[in-house]
Amino acid sequence: MDGAYPEPGAASNSGSRAAKAVAELKSRDRDIMLLTHTSAILGWDQETYLPSKGIDERSAQLALLHGLTHERTIAPENRSLLDAAGANADGDPSLPPLDRAFLRRYRRRYERAVKLPQELVVTLAEKTSRAQAVWVEAREADDFPRFAPHLQGLLDLLLEVSDRVGYDEHPYDALLDQYEPFMKTSSVDRIFTGLREQLVPIVEAIAAAPQVDASILEREFPVAAQERFGRTVMDALGYSRDRGRLDVSAHPFTTTLGFDDVRITTRYNERFFNSAIFGTMHEVGHGLYELGFAEELRGTLLAEGTSLGIHESQSRMWENMIGRSRPFWRHFYPILRSHFPDVLSDVDAEGFYRAINRVAPSLIRVEADEVTYALHVILRFELEKALVSRTLSVKDLPEAWRAKSRELLGVEPANDREGVLQDIHWSMGGIGYFPTYALGNLYAAAFMQRINRDLPALWTEVGEGNCSSLLSWLRTHIHRHGSARTAEELCVEITGQPLSAEPFINYVREKYRDIYGLD
Amino acid sequence: MDGAYPEPGAASNSGSRAAKAVAELKSRDRDIMLLTHTSAILGWDQETYLPSKGIDERSAQLALLHGLTHERTIAPENRSLLDAAGANADGDPSLPPLDRAFLRRYRRRYERAVKLPQELVVTLAEKTSRAQAVWVEAREADDFPRFAPHLQGLLDLLLEVSDRVGYDEHPYDALLDQYEPFMKTSSVDRIFTGLREQLVPIVEAIAAAPQVDASILEREFPVAAQERFGRTVMDALGYSRDRGRLDVSAHPFTTTLGFDDVRITTRYNERFFNSAIFGTMHEVGHGLYELGFAEELRGTLLAEGTSLGIHESQSRMWENMIGRSRPFWRHFYPILRSHFPDVLSDVDAEGFYRAINRVAPSLIRVEADEVTYALHVILRFELEKALVSRTLSVKDLPEAWRAKSRELLGVEPANDREGVLQDIHWSMGGIGYFPTYALGNLYAAAFMQRINRDLPALWTEVGEGNCSSLLSWLRTHIHRHGSARTAEELCVEITGQPLSAEPFINYVREKYRDIYGLD
Repeated sequence: MDGAYPEPGAASNSGSRAAKAVAELKSRDRDIMLLTHTSAILGWDQETYLPSKGIDERSAQLALLHGLTHERTIAPENRSLLDAAGANADGDPSLPPLDRAFLRRYRRRYERAVKLPQELVVTLAEKTSRAQAVWVEAREADDFPRFAPHLQGLLDLLLEVSDRVGYDEHPYDALLDQYEPFMKTSSVDRIFTGLREQLVPIVEAIAAAPQVDASILEREFPVAAQERFGRTVMDALGYSRDRGRLDVSAHPFTTTLGFDDVRITTRYNERFFNSAIFGTMHEVGHGLYELGFAEELRGTLLAEGTSLGIHESQSRMWENMIGRSRPFWRHFYPILRSHFPDVLSDVDAEGFYRAINRVAPSLIRVEADEVTYALHVILRFELEKALVSRTLSVKDLPEAWRAKSRELLGVEPANDREGVLQDIHWSMGGIGYFPTYALGNLYAAAFMQRINRDLPALWTEVGEGNCSSLLSWLRTHIHRHGSARTAEELCVEITGQPLSAEPFINYVREKYRDIYGLD
Repeated sequence: MDGAYPEPGAASNSGSRAAKAVAELKSRDRDIMLLTHTSAILGWDQETYLPSKGIDERSAQLALLHGLTHERTIAPENRSLLDAAGANADGDPSLPPLDRAFLRRYRRRYERAVKLPQELVVTLAEKTSRAQAVWVEAREADDFPRFAPHLQGLLDLLLEVSDRVGYDEHPYDALLDQYEPFMKTSSVDRIFTGLREQLVPIVEAIAAAPQVDASILEREFPVAAQERFGRTVMDALGYSRDRGRLDVSAHPFTTTLGFDDVRITTRYNERFFNSAIFGTMHEVGHGLYELGFAEELRGTLLAEGTSLGIHESQSRMWENMIGRSRPFWRHFYPILRSHFPDVLSDVDAEGFYRAINRVAPSLIRVEADEVTYALHVILRFELEKALVSRTLSVKDLPEAWRAKSRELLGVEPANDREGVLQDIHWSMGGIGYFPTYALGNLYAAAFMQRINRDLPALWTEVGEGNCSSLLSWLRTHIHRHGSARTAEELCVEITGQPLSAEPFINYVREKYRDIYGLD
């Protein structure tokens, strides 16, 4: 033990010994973070500007960096330093709270990583890479049987991961935990059951009501004007250009290249207005979270979103609760029309508001509206759980998908391209990821109940194009904490209770009752 | 020794033992190369797209990567592997020629690096970083005394580097060798003396002749049209967009981010046509070199330019010998006019050709024409040599600069901003770098003599906008070798003799006799 502490004598005071261990762990953590951000730079470039033939060496560069990161993550010195920092999971009780939060996260990362043998990690990476390529072909050819053995292989490896990482209740817990730390499958089950029960009748009622015409969104919206308008909105939401960038990529994303360098991307579709603007607002929401961590967290693993669910709550709040609200377009619709004077000359703000809030059960998750979206997620969660429990076999997946789709959404895909093959996630080994998308909507609605109480002038301000109070509120209550608070801690602190579907259901019911004239 | 070779029994055959050592060294070299390219990605991004506030962490990311690269470069295993590869500098004679070229380069890099103690490297990096910042302020304030102590500090450290690296003849050798490997100060002296003697009278004769009017180049050239035209030229020169990119940066550069990913930048000046187009052609020349290495060199340190002088020969050949030639504009001038129909309506091809070839002694190196350019370089080389020999002290540098400028160029800067403070190189510790700029022009002219013999149809083809034979020739005789041939080997192979100023002087004399009507 003492080898780690070159200064003699200091070990007599346990607080000081723990503090020194924390300092050394932070220094190690800083290198890991610098390497992680470096990988993110390579990844960002790959999706935006990499010349086509540069891809092979880029993969090799990324593999080398991941190896260096992993080496540092599992370095044996971590064990002795963590021991020296205190016997509890979050270290010695005498340590400052931020250090204890740091230790909690650092220990989790270390312990998960050392439980996985190098061979398993490498095999998973290789099989994932292969499975992704096969998935692309299989989707194109609408040929699930071609993809099935690869999915089976990944599933087997993920179950081995789950066994090695360990779990109390359900093997799915260990997978979910990578994306939504500390969340249990049983909690998701409970929350999604309530959500499903209340959401299905709402969707049915909407389907029975007179439909909204959204065809105006498929008129021709020149890309240059979309981009100018998108940047106006981006600025108005408070995303600062001296700490971020907006570029174009095939699939929009947010990525953190440095504490002061968080970039977003979008994509433009000349014949579908929603793609770029709501994509941009969604990524701005992620970006604002990553740009809002407290200065005290700089250079540590606490400067990260605390869970993907909380991350998604930020993107969905800006995209849907703000971006698809009437007050927001009260201010921005005249500006939008000035960018597209001819295209929108016959459309008023209310017609536009209704169009962007059209609800209709559909086959493709990424194109779903905010009401039916959660049902797409529940479908995947239920299938994943069944796969992981081995109560559903991979070969029966397409039929199970169709059945669930009928049951939850009332529609059935005519082929597997629009069904079980539509998402990339499983080919990337991302079982356990989907739930976080719906959890994000639920967190957002729960937080918004409190925000509406705390900020009575919010919607008046938003109606004037001013979103700064909301951003301040989010920074104070969510962003600055990074991962120093767990998702549940944040939720209880803000809403007084653990996550439930209730606030989201209330939000949906109220908003769409108005739009669709339901009782 | 055997510890490095896990397979028992193989060591009995010395060829096999050497071959195994080479394989292991290549695997180590590959990681070094991947790390080097990763640093290049970070550097490219820093100059093109990095949000302003991201700079501090970017420096930390780069410092970490440089540390990792250095660690691998000086790893003690290199020594035993190099020994196992054979007693000669280029390994065992039984090895294939490419492996011997590899060993020669690998050994040089290793031996230079291990001679420099870590502390010296770190101190130099820190002082350089500080000196650069001071240089920016000092240049702005025209305050050489503020910069002087920093330059003195760097000079002292560079002399220590030189002492530790070692040299046969002149302490400047060890500095020059970093940029122009295997070249001696005495050779540069000899070449530059001849160059200077013949160039000065030519410049004087041009100054006495009727002057060329180049004011048309300062008309207004809209950036978007400049960019379109520049990309047309870039494509015509054979720079492939699937292995490269053109972006904008404050100072144009070429950088290699991967074997199949070599990017260039340019800058646009609406009121000076030359900046973007000749900058682009210059960087295309560097880029084509980096994209022309033989497949066999992939992933090794042989996939690098063999010296900065040879590198500059490629950029200058495309920029000046092609880009400022009459045949080139025979094809491209009508295209250029179609991009700027109003601006150039009263200018014919010959008037344009003369404007872009205007010669005039001036104060600023980067704005100099191809005739006077070398004199700017000789000025710096002579001052650097005097500094390194300690026959000139830093405090006397401004006056020495003015004197040399009068002597070589016939003009004298009114202040130090336009004199001794104009270049960034010294503040970066880049003493020994400048000569390579002029060597590049000389190499290019020497190669062109041979090219004119080998490709009798060259100028007819260039006059039709077809530069492909030239590119093929360069690939075959220069590019594919990477650094498997030294600059001198290339020069002797191509021209039959070591480098001399003769071909350049002949080129200049013939071209400018015609433009300026000299006897």
